[in-house]
Amino acid sequence: MTTKTTEAAETALPAEAARTAGATETAHAVEHTRTRAHGDDLTHDHAYVHGYSPAEARRLGDQADTLAELLHAGTAYPAGSRVLEAGCGVGAQTVHLLASSPGAELTAADISADSLGEARARVAAQAPDARVIWHHGDLHELPFADGSFDHLFVCFVLEHLADPSAALTALRRVLRPGGTITVIEGDHGSTLFHPDSAAARATVDHLVRLQADAGGDALLGRRLHPLLADAGFRDVAVRPLTVSVDGSRPALVEGFTRRTFVAMVESVRADALAAGLTTAAAFDHGIADLRRTAEEGGTFHYTFFKAVAVNP
Amino acid sequence: MTTKTTEAAETALPAEAARTAGATETAHAVEHTRTRAHGDDLTHDHAYVHGYSPAEARRLGDQADTLAELLHAGTAYPAGSRVLEAGCGVGAQTVHLLASSPGAELTAADISADSLGEARARVAAQAPDARVIWHHGDLHELPFADGSFDHLFVCFVLEHLADPSAALTALRRVLRPGGTITVIEGDHGSTLFHPDSAAARATVDHLVRLQADAGGDALLGRRLHPLLADAGFRDVAVRPLTVSVDGSRPALVEGFTRRTFVAMVESVRADALAAGLTTAAAFDHGIADLRRTAEEGGTFHYTFFKAVAVNP
Repeated sequence: MTTKTTEAAETALPAEAARTAGATETAHAVEHTRTRAHGDDLTHDHAYVHGYSPAEARRLGDQADTLAELLHAGTAYPAGSRVLEAGCGVGAQTVHLLASSPGAELTAADISADSLGEARARVAAQAPDARVIWHHGDLHELPFADGSFDHLFVCFVLEHLADPSAALTALRRVLRPGGTITVIEGDHGSTLFHPDSAAARATVDHLVRLQADAGGDALLGRRLHPLLADAGFRDVAVRPLTVSVDGSRPALVEGFTRRTFVAMVESVRADALAAGLTTAAAFDHGIADLRRTAEEGGTFHYTFFKAVAVNP
Repeated sequence: MTTKTTEAAETALPAEAARTAGATETAHAVEHTRTRAHGDDLTHDHAYVHGYSPAEARRLGDQADTLAELLHAGTAYPAGSRVLEAGCGVGAQTVHLLASSPGAELTAADISADSLGEARARVAAQAPDARVIWHHGDLHELPFADGSFDHLFVCFVLEHLADPSAALTALRRVLRPGGTITVIEGDHGSTLFHPDSAAARATVDHLVRLQADAGGDALLGRRLHPLLADAGFRDVAVRPLTVSVDGSRPALVEGFTRRTFVAMVESVRADALAAGLTTAAAFDHGIADLRRTAEEGGTFHYTFFKAVAVNP
């Protein structure tokens, strides 16, 4: 939940097939003219706390497979509507948007050229007939005319930005009056598990701290309403979407608790040690306790927030 | 959410009318024969962390009015079915059960004679035609024959008990094979708010600590699944129910954030000071910060857990 990417659960393709199809390009993808003079400076967004490793890409896929139904329910755009996915990352939300809104004119933008390449490959593998306009650039400085889009979709992006208010204001400029923005973010403060463990909670706190040090906010979900209202949006409606995992849901135990959440926390081990936040023994103790919540009798709960608002 | 009681939002009666109708007895109420020899010892359940003051009764009413739709959705019992509400408190869930399941044969049990009196008055005021069998007794030692009930309803009770597993096992005895149990509990660890505040979080932690000192568990919601499974129930299904409050929901700002949650935390001020958990200044700072979340731009979120399970 701390990423901009996802993988299609709606398609017949298993996640692994999509992952290994990385070299394929979709014949229908249209590369948007790069308008930033310093585009190559954007290739790596160093503020992305989870890094760009293959393991992270796999984690994002696991997360997306598991969460697609929960997060994308209710999001479908009419045929012909102009939709911008701002911060598409490796394109995993993109394939869900295409599946839910096959007739929409989708533009997908990201600051990382590498991620965009992965996104194109993912769409080519999972939605080969889809047509997407790809844009490499900073969402704070989009080259599109005012009101160019009918709908904006922003998922797991704001939490990584130093100034999410400025980003929302910039995005609102390219949304037509009466158009909608949909924003989905997590909030690590919502993490609940049984058996409870101070050591496990500490590892989550380290991740929150590292993301804050990188300029982000892993607790952003709770403040989507004021963020959108302050950026000038109206009719802001925020819904909590809680993933609740226990022994009755083995797919979530594996797909969410283990392969999404624990893997996410575990991925910052080296950074947490380098930053002096913890010791190896304490961190590993916390991870072991987090893993315990995925065993017999354990439970795990996490809340995402999904906001829809209108540009007046 | 740390109580066994509620007030009818479905009825036309405003909450205040129900509260002031405390002296009325319903002509249709049937007092169950008291079978415990030491029944009077039950009059006060000292483990109930919030106490039995008029202010607490009002808080419970505010909570119930606000939450009835969320918590009671999907709970309706067939006409003629035998339903036991275990831990009915002052009867506020009782009036909701009666409204949703008008044909059921409802028995309402509580350990506090005073609360039962309030419950009878509440039902008389809000559902004068309803017939309820009232039972004063300990839910661990119910005098009913094995399998006496088709359905059990338990709301905001387990969190106050020293041994919720033992209580569930005792309750399962009076549920017929194939009958269902519905359990609703909160979890203070789910509390999220904006602006975030360490002082405010500390006041919530004090409440959790005081409830633990009283033998309860304010973090119980997260472990409903293993509790029910370990007590021998099957097909345990737990759903999170999140109350999400922001400026777009003024009724929740008042009814939930201010009059339910903040009032609940504030009610333990004297106990927290007496226990040496905090200073008056620090506690009041935390309460002020909690109140801030109900002002312009603030948000507040809390998750309840509702479980339904079957007696095999």
